[in-house]
Amino acid sequence: MIRIDAPRLWSTLAMMAQIGGTPAGGVTRLALSEEDRIARNLLRDWALEAGFACDVDSMGNMFIRRAGKNRDLPPVMTGSHMDSQPLGGNYDGIYGVLAGLEVLRTLNDHQVETERDIVLVNWTNEEGARFAPAMLASGVWSGQFSEEYALARADNAGVTVGEALDAIGYRGTQPARAFPVHACYELHIEQGPILEDEAIDIGLVRAAMGQRWFTLTLDGFAAHAGTTPMHSRRDALTAFAELALMVEEIGYQHKPDGRATIGMAQVTPNSRNVVPSRVVCSVEFRHPQSEVLEAMEVALREAAEGLATRGVTANVERIFDYAPIAFDEACLARSEKAVEALGYSAKPMVSGAGHDTCYISKIAPASMIFIPCEKGISHNEAEKILPEWSEKGANVLLHSVLSAALEK
Amino acid sequence: MIRIDAPRLWSTLAMMAQIGGTPAGGVTRLALSEEDRIARNLLRDWALEAGFACDVDSMGNMFIRRAGKNRDLPPVMTGSHMDSQPLGGNYDGIYGVLAGLEVLRTLNDHQVETERDIVLVNWTNEEGARFAPAMLASGVWSGQFSEEYALARADNAGVTVGEALDAIGYRGTQPARAFPVHACYELHIEQGPILEDEAIDIGLVRAAMGQRWFTLTLDGFAAHAGTTPMHSRRDALTAFAELALMVEEIGYQHKPDGRATIGMAQVTPNSRNVVPSRVVCSVEFRHPQSEVLEAMEVALREAAEGLATRGVTANVERIFDYAPIAFDEACLARSEKAVEALGYSAKPMVSGAGHDTCYISKIAPASMIFIPCEKGISHNEAEKILPEWSEKGANVLLHSVLSAALEK
Ligand SMILES: NC(=O)NCCC(=O)O
Ligand SMILES: NC(=O)NCCC(=O)O
Repeated sequence: MIRIDAPRLWSTLAMMAQIGGTPAGGVTRLALSEEDRIARNLLRDWALEAGFACDVDSMGNMFIRRAGKNRDLPPVMTGSHMDSQPLGGNYDGIYGVLAGLEVLRTLNDHQVETERDIVLVNWTNEEGARFAPAMLASGVWSGQFSEEYALARADNAGVTVGEALDAIGYRGTQPARAFPVHACYELHIEQGPILEDEAIDIGLVRAAMGQRWFTLTLDGFAAHAGTTPMHSRRDALTAFAELALMVEEIGYQHKPDGRATIGMAQVTPNSRNVVPSRVVCSVEFRHPQSEVLEAMEVALREAAEGLATRGVTANVERIFDYAPIAFDEACLARSEKAVEALGYSAKPMVSGAGHDTCYISKIAPASMIFIPCEKGISHNEAEKILPEWSEKGANVLLHSVLSAALEK
Repeated sequence: MIRIDAPRLWSTLAMMAQIGGTPAGGVTRLALSEEDRIARNLLRDWALEAGFACDVDSMGNMFIRRAGKNRDLPPVMTGSHMDSQPLGGNYDGIYGVLAGLEVLRTLNDHQVETERDIVLVNWTNEEGARFAPAMLASGVWSGQFSEEYALARADNAGVTVGEALDAIGYRGTQPARAFPVHACYELHIEQGPILEDEAIDIGLVRAAMGQRWFTLTLDGFAAHAGTTPMHSRRDALTAFAELALMVEEIGYQHKPDGRATIGMAQVTPNSRNVVPSRVVCSVEFRHPQSEVLEAMEVALREAAEGLATRGVTANVERIFDYAPIAFDEACLARSEKAVEALGYSAKPMVSGAGHDTCYISKIAPASMIFIPCEKGISHNEAEKILPEWSEKGANVLLHSVLSAALEK
């Protein structure tokens, strides 16, 4: 049974971590930023060096293709994303891309001929950090969003996805539209503590939670902090504070699986001696059941309306409705076989995070493979994995992909 | 009895309002910004046109001097500030400066000779919006802050006062150090609702509230919004929300005069799907009594420590301690006489806002004159005054300054 080259994968990860590296040892490589451009160029160089073609579509998605014997058959796909959170970690997304590259390199090393092409993908803007929502370009590719909508999404500075693609030279010519795929695998860090806690090598991901994302705009009235008595204020910030605690409470009401988070807030005019006139913030909810997500949204809208007692109006816009999904049994079965053959331990899991492959699962058989990450820390510069975890995950990916690619 | 030229003052205000004008009819003319540079140049041009000298000191304070007969006598001073809040109003500060210019122009028109020089001042960075704390340059001039400290204060982008002075060419050669002053008057909009509510023309400001300003840094731990259960989060933002409601409560506990405001907050990493690791925010308290300010600070420190139950640490730094002050009786008496002679109505007031002349009162006899502003709205683009209010205030300033300047 062939194996990936673990030290090569590890050093590839370390090289990539230089791009956008932060003083605290993490990475800031926002989607379609200069750092993303450099990282993409490096991936393309590595692909060309290994003899693979690299195409780019109109959403900036990159497709690296290793030819099989029968080029007319739908290929096997693997991949993830290269963008990161601001002050993010060195493994979220990029591990799946570089492990995919390692799989292709390993097949070359062993001169393995496959029946089908294998396509390694880098999906644009998975994080949703620079451009909301998340999984934007895999969403377009799989038909969830129109390309027009996606290209017009803007970051906090008002730069659109379309402009950012042009700026880094990654608006490709291929249409961002799904082609037939035989099977799709994504390898990712768990981003939670379960595998490490239970000392299990591999998570076989059977499903992913649903998500609803909102943008809220709270409008009060700017006033002088020294001359305006407490009772005559219409303070958008204290209204926001009340809302934030209610959002947290909505999360607690649906434990253990419910998640409620405000990650982003912008205050206007944001001056020390001005009672704030406006707060724009995000709210996001997650849960494995659609009915619970619906209840969370209802509770949010009620909480927002309640701010009227403070003289503050709240506009609630839902910008993302990501349904819970279940992965493909046949895909999972190949990974399960690989785990057994390799002698690893594994358990079935549900992902709390969203992934590009959740969207791909809507148009092709797909599933995911998780490896542990230290203390479950992710979306944090302190994100960490061990070399042996990285190796085991990549070996499971290798044999999942290979077994699908050998199928006629 | 001579009077100022009301239409000229009104059109001077309108011209100045163009510089940094916002779509909603307000102004953003932050201290030492490009807009501030243009506004300063315009004031200087107007002063030179009218035949007055204009000096600039090492803090960028501008001194426009109309000569009296006896140049050895300490001058009479008047002035205010030209900087504004972000999305601020067209009268806060700038009204006092341009009414001072109108006083000098009126004395020229009527060829009035005074015993003493009259000095019109534009104090740098009164608002404390771009550079905290407020009243920074009048504070240096009056010996409250060292110049070294003031020049090193930085804005949110890390630009220091010293760098900003150089950038707009307003780091003057004169030392920023008080010279003897016979009397100092500042004319300002009330920034509160009392004068308009009671239909009174003029506020005779006897005192100003004290202020304490703080910078708080709340540190939690960044985590994935999808994979991190509610109970294992150390969320800096929900901790901030709890604190913000406690700060508001501290304000209510000391009504009617107590003020408690969070005007500024910055979230890190500020991404929708990351549980925030850090919030940096301002807190400010105001009250006419020092003992109450002390109690408010103690309550703030307790509230901040309480966030430990959320796994969030809070660093509380006091950056400004501005004691309550009382103004000079002799100065107030001249304004009172002017009000009577002009046939206006007036009432004694306490200012909830801080002003440069509070600092000047520490080294020279000083007092202030307020005019109404619509609904008390200030630190807001909707700030508004009526032409007749503007006229009456400037006439009271004229005769307060003139009577002091005629004294031997
Ligand atoms: N895997 C991951 O962190 N994706 C970002 C989108 C999300 O927050 O679920
Ligand atoms: N007058 C005025 O708005 N000054 C700014 C400083 C303060 O907030 O008191």
